[in-house]
Amino acid sequence: MATVGIRRVESGSLTDADDLLVTEEPLEIRLGYGPLDDRREIRLSVTMRTPGHDEELTRGFLYTEGLIGENTELLRVAHCEDVKPEERGNVIRAELRPDIEVDPARWQRNFYTTSSCGVCGKSSIEAVHATCTRRITPWGAVDADVITALPDRMRAAQTVFQHTGGIHAAALFGRAGELLLLREDVGRHNAVDKVIGAALAGHLPTEGSMLLVSGRAGFELVQKCVVAGIPLMAAVGAPSSLAVTLARDSGLTLIGFLRGERFNIYAPQ
Amino acid sequence: MATVGIRRVESGSLTDADDLLVTEEPLEIRLGYGPLDDRREIRLSVTMRTPGHDEELTRGFLYTEGLIGENTELLRVAHCEDVKPEERGNVIRAELRPDIEVDPARWQRNFYTTSSCGVCGKSSIEAVHATCTRRITPWGAVDADVITALPDRMRAAQTVFQHTGGIHAAALFGRAGELLLLREDVGRHNAVDKVIGAALAGHLPTEGSMLLVSGRAGFELVQKCVVAGIPLMAAVGAPSSLAVTLARDSGLTLIGFLRGERFNIYAPQ
Repeated sequence: MATVGIRRVESGSLTDADDLLVTEEPLEIRLGYGPLDDRREIRLSVTMRTPGHDEELTRGFLYTEGLIGENTELLRVAHCEDVKPEERGNVIRAELRPDIEVDPARWQRNFYTTSSCGVCGKSSIEAVHATCTRRITPWGAVDADVITALPDRMRAAQTVFQHTGGIHAAALFGRAGELLLLREDVGRHNAVDKVIGAALAGHLPTEGSMLLVSGRAGFELVQKCVVAGIPLMAAVGAPSSLAVTLARDSGLTLIGFLRGERFNIYAPQ
Repeated sequence: MATVGIRRVESGSLTDADDLLVTEEPLEIRLGYGPLDDRREIRLSVTMRTPGHDEELTRGFLYTEGLIGENTELLRVAHCEDVKPEERGNVIRAELRPDIEVDPARWQRNFYTTSSCGVCGKSSIEAVHATCTRRITPWGAVDADVITALPDRMRAAQTVFQHTGGIHAAALFGRAGELLLLREDVGRHNAVDKVIGAALAGHLPTEGSMLLVSGRAGFELVQKCVVAGIPLMAAVGAPSSLAVTLARDSGLTLIGFLRGERFNIYAPQ
């Protein structure tokens, strides 16, 4: 977090004040691959993120975008030292196991651009299923009391939000609603990748857990749950049409508008 | 919008209901370039967006990402007809004027990945200034009553939000707070690109107007305002550290937490 001097306006009157801001910085993710005596590197992406838990973010990103199938495909993930001083901490490199073959042309491009099956809602969903061999074990009956207790539990653990009000959160809960992991980030996708990356690195099974996100449930967040095999996703906000279609198609239980004693069940149908 | 059957839970009791969802579909943006007798094409990006105003989205995206400097650099923008039936309406092609030279390698990659100046907050800001030759004319004194009236005016015009609760909005206002343009999209960046693209296509000057966004003010949204020469940006939510630094560095007036009779002025300092 960063402190800045601001001017606060209330009912027309102006006062000087200090304000805490959520930190946002670029992170470049690089991938090392190939035999150990002929190592190569590709620059996969640059994302604006809140610094911290960068290793988990990287593992989660590679996993939920279908670039690795399990954590053991990575030898290590670490910030690069051979960068300019001002870039320290903002460039990270994941080392792929030497025996794993990659097609750099495919990896360098966007997940969807690579899918050869076209550009429509149906093909986006097919691309997720093609990437992901995991099948979701359906959640079964939803216990309303367990679900409605989740947002308060997440909010209470959100330290950065309490100070800045400017950050997304994603949290993983066990079947009884116990908080397992929480991560915050200026980017909603990053918060989800950090949680899933942390679960992956910590050998925490995601198959019997629920993911709660602080915002809306778009296609890409549902996709990340499906790829990780998470059987229930709940959002404080609204889902999109394609998110609901993907959830129904994948066996994911999708809950939206989770507020107070109310929520909507969008999937299964 | 799409209607789906859902189950609504309230205080533990379950009822069947219909719910309206915001539509989300992929859009592939292609660029045609080169001499008219040897026309080439690159696939620039695929974004998840709410269908509608795709031409404005494309113009705004190309402009705010610094790929074109003005609207006249494009001959036309239209959906592609030579695609599979199910992809119709989801693939759009912008035709660059034949006399404009492009470096496809640069265009095919992410805006930040291309910046040769490194990966840190400072270099992200330098990349925006390098892309953008326009200078913002400072807004001057902020009239509190004009600012606090904006969110209600935007909300009243947000037709899709009223039905789905699941969509971002961006609106352009004149100096007296009159609504000039409003666009909604499942993606916050897309909503801003649609508004700026509509202004660009309609020869509406952005130099004397204010942009209001329904969510948070991250670096990339502030960047789009700076590139478009919009002198004042207001957000219902919080700004990030890098967004404030870029705004202060660019002469953009940045307002956050605009709610009721209150708001914070983050830039100028």
